[in-house]
Amino acid sequence: MDKQTGYVTKNLLATPIVMGKEVLAVIMALNKVNASEFSKQDEEVFSKYLNFVSIILKLHHTTYMYNIESRRSQILMWSANKVFEELTDVERQFHKALYTVRTYLNCERYSIGLLDMTKEKEFYDEWPIKLGEVEPYKGPKTPDGREVNFYKIIDYILHGKEEIKVIPTPPADHWTLVSGLPTYVAENGFICNMMNAPADEYFTFQKGPVDETGWVIKNVLSLPIVNKKEDIVGVATFYNRKDGKPFDEHDEYITETLTQFLGWSLLNTDTYEKMNKLENRKDIAQEMLMNHTKATPEEIKSILKFQEKLNVDVIDECEEKQLVAILKEDLPDPRSVELYEFRFSDFPITEHGLIKCGIRLFFEINVVEKFKVPVEVLTRWMYTVRKGYRAVTYHNWRHGFNVGQTMFTLLMTGRLKKYYTDLEAFAMLAAAFCHDIDHRGTNNLYQMKSTSPLARLHGSSILERHHLEYSKTLLQDESLNIFQNLNKRQFETVIHLFEVAIIATDLALYFKKRTMFQKIVDACEQMQTEEDAIKYVTVDPTKKEIIMAMMMTACDLSAITKPWEVQSQVALMVANEFWEQGDLERTVLQQQPIPMMDRNKKDELPKLQVGFIDFVCTFVYKEFSRFHKEITPMLSGLQNNRVEWKSLADEYDAKMKVLEEEAKKQEEGAEKAAEDAGGGDDKKSKTCLML
Amino acid sequence: MDKQTGYVTKNLLATPIVMGKEVLAVIMALNKVNASEFSKQDEEVFSKYLNFVSIILKLHHTTYMYNIESRRSQILMWSANKVFEELTDVERQFHKALYTVRTYLNCERYSIGLLDMTKEKEFYDEWPIKLGEVEPYKGPKTPDGREVNFYKIIDYILHGKEEIKVIPTPPADHWTLVSGLPTYVAENGFICNMMNAPADEYFTFQKGPVDETGWVIKNVLSLPIVNKKEDIVGVATFYNRKDGKPFDEHDEYITETLTQFLGWSLLNTDTYEKMNKLENRKDIAQEMLMNHTKATPEEIKSILKFQEKLNVDVIDECEEKQLVAILKEDLPDPRSVELYEFRFSDFPITEHGLIKCGIRLFFEINVVEKFKVPVEVLTRWMYTVRKGYRAVTYHNWRHGFNVGQTMFTLLMTGRLKKYYTDLEAFAMLAAAFCHDIDHRGTNNLYQMKSTSPLARLHGSSILERHHLEYSKTLLQDESLNIFQNLNKRQFETVIHLFEVAIIATDLALYFKKRTMFQKIVDACEQMQTEEDAIKYVTVDPTKKEIIMAMMMTACDLSAITKPWEVQSQVALMVANEFWEQGDLERTVLQQQPIPMMDRNKKDELPKLQVGFIDFVCTFVYKEFSRFHKEITPMLSGLQNNRVEWKSLADEYDAKMKVLEEEAKKQEEGAEKAAEDAGGGDDKKSKTCLML
Repeated sequence: MDKQTGYVTKNLLATPIVMGKEVLAVIMALNKVNASEFSKQDEEVFSKYLNFVSIILKLHHTTYMYNIESRRSQILMWSANKVFEELTDVERQFHKALYTVRTYLNCERYSIGLLDMTKEKEFYDEWPIKLGEVEPYKGPKTPDGREVNFYKIIDYILHGKEEIKVIPTPPADHWTLVSGLPTYVAENGFICNMMNAPADEYFTFQKGPVDETGWVIKNVLSLPIVNKKEDIVGVATFYNRKDGKPFDEHDEYITETLTQFLGWSLLNTDTYEKMNKLENRKDIAQEMLMNHTKATPEEIKSILKFQEKLNVDVIDECEEKQLVAILKEDLPDPRSVELYEFRFSDFPITEHGLIKCGIRLFFEINVVEKFKVPVEVLTRWMYTVRKGYRAVTYHNWRHGFNVGQTMFTLLMTGRLKKYYTDLEAFAMLAAAFCHDIDHRGTNNLYQMKSTSPLARLHGSSILERHHLEYSKTLLQDESLNIFQNLNKRQFETVIHLFEVAIIATDLALYFKKRTMFQKIVDACEQMQTEEDAIKYVTVDPTKKEIIMAMMMTACDLSAITKPWEVQSQVALMVANEFWEQGDLERTVLQQQPIPMMDRNKKDELPKLQVGFIDFVCTFVYKEFSRFHKEITPMLSGLQNNRVEWKSLADEYDAKMKVLEEEAKKQEEGAEKAAEDAGGGDDKKSKTCLML
Repeated sequence: MDKQTGYVTKNLLATPIVMGKEVLAVIMALNKVNASEFSKQDEEVFSKYLNFVSIILKLHHTTYMYNIESRRSQILMWSANKVFEELTDVERQFHKALYTVRTYLNCERYSIGLLDMTKEKEFYDEWPIKLGEVEPYKGPKTPDGREVNFYKIIDYILHGKEEIKVIPTPPADHWTLVSGLPTYVAENGFICNMMNAPADEYFTFQKGPVDETGWVIKNVLSLPIVNKKEDIVGVATFYNRKDGKPFDEHDEYITETLTQFLGWSLLNTDTYEKMNKLENRKDIAQEMLMNHTKATPEEIKSILKFQEKLNVDVIDECEEKQLVAILKEDLPDPRSVELYEFRFSDFPITEHGLIKCGIRLFFEINVVEKFKVPVEVLTRWMYTVRKGYRAVTYHNWRHGFNVGQTMFTLLMTGRLKKYYTDLEAFAMLAAAFCHDIDHRGTNNLYQMKSTSPLARLHGSSILERHHLEYSKTLLQDESLNIFQNLNKRQFETVIHLFEVAIIATDLALYFKKRTMFQKIVDACEQMQTEEDAIKYVTVDPTKKEIIMAMMMTACDLSAITKPWEVQSQVALMVANEFWEQGDLERTVLQQQPIPMMDRNKKDELPKLQVGFIDFVCTFVYKEFSRFHKEITPMLSGLQNNRVEWKSLADEYDAKMKVLEEEAKKQEEGAEKAAEDAGGGDDKKSKTCLML
């Protein structure tokens, strides 16, 4: 110092001011007056005085540090507030956060450069390089190998009139880039603090004013923004600390906190992009699916023969009345195919024929005209529902149709219609047809055990929720929406009934509604007149829902009430589907199926049927027969089938008993023989044979 | 104070110590010794001394505040670090954040109670309530109406041995809940600071030790965790500050920061759940789609008649050799249907027949045996590809087949096969068949303008990327994977060729490859021998790719080279599809279509065709004919069609000219007549008529 100032230091008393481990300052007294050196006493005075000075210094320092930490936590809180507001893209997220924290950054300007994240070129852009026609890129690259390319600069001007400038695809000579510092940071990932930027030799910052404001660069602090995968995503650069001093380590600390937080928060913007992609893929798949399941014009023509009969090409040229007439002409006579009967069987009718039967039923309950259902839409919807059922062994379109037909029969022949409005009956019939749409021939437990996407989506009543969602999706397409001419409130009623009716087919919920249903039947039995009973039920939407839910069960299980020649065949289909699931459990899940699904125990079918009738079905049909005597045919059918299954079960038991006794005898005989022969091995192998 | 202590205060000198607006302390001197009151001088000494004391106090306070802010920002940084690590569920996210910040919380325990977020009951759980059989819930509810139900408590024990206890479905008398404080916080959303918990009258905290550690509750600070939608999601409760003092406002400040951050961060966990749902829905839709597009066993049997001919039910029972034989038996003779000809036309063959022709071509290039393609899989794949094409006007299965057939013909008849391995030829033929799968009859620009999900997913070559993705999805199903017996490297080659070949059909990329292709043709023309040319091409995979990409274009446009009777019909199909898109643009997008897609300008078709031939097609077929003279028939066909289109265009021009002249004459005549009659309106209306 003496050399610089010309002053001559003769003697010197110095002491540091320390806070924790940090030296805050060094205080020096120079050249003792009237003496050649400082005395012991001087030292004492000096150090006593310093106690006082040091506390003031410490207070100063702590206040500064408090200010730093306080700005830091404000920056974090405000960034977090913005970052969690919504999912959005990188640009918007950075901008929202950087804008809200501007007052805490204490600098005149800052800019953010966003880096292109693409790693690989398209093949057709690589060809000219591979052919040697174009020079390969030799410029700076990020540590993970991307070409350093700032596709956007956002420039925050806080001095003078606050302003934000967005520069898309900035030129290389833009004042923020021309020094090469952001590129250097993007290449190396270092934090760079240029205390005297204009004097720097390595980076040549713009010397004069950068724009019309006259503002010049003095100090620069530049940091990379790095995501959690350690990719450099952008570069943040801060210019000219507000108080004119260079940026210090505390500024580095604060800005590093900010850039680090922003880097981490890219999880959100990545998620935003992923989510959009997923959503688009989902939409694409759903649109393609609709394209494949929706009945084609040709299929519609196979039912609604307008072209053939009216000799027109486009359906729009026909009047609705004409269409109704030509459609009805080809629909089967409901009496001759026994659509009104509980004993109805689908066996004699083709699957295509069942579509026509299904359409017929809507005319029979008089809803087509009343609710202005265009016959083209009704036809398309019914055909599309049919196509929605898979070709599985039991839960296929035939089953879907049967449930619809039984719903119809319960309403009409069973006279349950009297509790419901026409609109409700319309919804119930439609829901019954849809109730198992897209069934996969495996049950809810299988979905769970195989953690299928369905099971991951729905927590309970897995398949039922899927049938419901699918049914609702169909109605969202106006060309399939048989309820298109209802008002909003009516449509909501329909959707609610769809929900209750279809979810109710989950047999796991059956036991929840049993007693409630029974109480309603009990109460109605006590009523003096039919009117009283109707009133008792209809004043309370809950009772109507419970009856409807139980009707769905009655429909779903109705195969068990059919004439024996039908029931015996259908039971085998159900069993076959179960056995197929059992096979899957063995092969795919590597689990032992329950006896019901184990084809090695197929002989136990009659016994299982008797059990199913006793523990589940009898209640349903007994109660419904008590509720409405018109439904008794179902109970009779059930009871008859019980007799059949029981006799088969008994037969099997008897056979087993005989076999057992024979085995026992043989064993005894063998034992005797073994005893006679003195050998033991034979006995063992024979026991094995019997198992 | 005197009353409490028995001391007698006679006189008093007091002064506050102030920092900013905050009173940090009040210092008092009591009872002046040897005087009845404090003097002016006393006041002076007192205040001078206090200057010193106050600085020490301020330092103390600032240090404390620094400590608070520093803990606060640490808590934020660490929480953010954890929250942005990955997307996860609420429990895990809370746990990760709360665990990392434990040292900054300065308390002996804290617990987090997670609230059930379900707002509505299932209908079957509401029935008993609506029927009056079960009492409705009358307990505490959150402000948004949920029943207060802590489904899980996580308990962090920091005193003694650190421990974390997770209590799923905690009983109401669990020590964290028994006081009712968390429930109160969940109900009201207040921050509650109980300075002396055991003495509290409103909440009765457990008095003695809460567990075997002997730990007792002294002070409690409880805060709600609120998400950005303002729903209370959980309650965080902090117990016993480490220094034994009650929690103060600064503790509230810190813990509020933490709970607020956690609450905001729930955006991530909500997103996690949404994303899982989306993914599941996407998977479900894709599985359903596959179920609908994949060829059914019946469809396979219609091509591969094993059941009919071998009299077996299951294909597994047949030997591959047998299957090959019976399949080949029914495949068309390639010569008789002209599969080797550039002039091949699909018109005489049914769409079902084209599936057989497609299969035949794979046998013709000898890849079925060589690459061990099971014929069942080949049949299923080819049939599924056919089903993947929609019934649109031009870009349907017939177009898909034609492109495959032309690829075959270019390879075989055009002798381009010599540059490619059998595996490459296999991939090229398969890619050609798939190249427009699931085309919607509208072009890329239409996807963009209608912002279809496809356009939102893919940034460029929208439809081509979709055809490619769909083709690859099919191969992911092993029962459709004709490349199933290739090794990993071979399979990757195939996928790469699919990518290049299918994306190359984007005509927007055509101009990028033109010159590169021409240079290859130029170079080959200069070669002395065929071997040299083959070597020149085959040593460089890029050249092979460029030729292949141009082959795809040649295939895609090949209709323009067909005999006039075919070309004239196909051109009309293409035009019709364009006009249909034009109609959509008018009706759906409410935009005026370009002339090519405007059916009101259908007369301009010949002129457009001539332009298309001149500016796009001629180059392709000229260069290919120069490259391989065997391909010249394509060029001849093209040139012939140009003559036809040109003459039609000229005819149209001539007709237009005549009309124009007539109109001119009429106009002149009318003008004259108008002049004669003196009226001006007529003239106007006639001009209109001519437009």
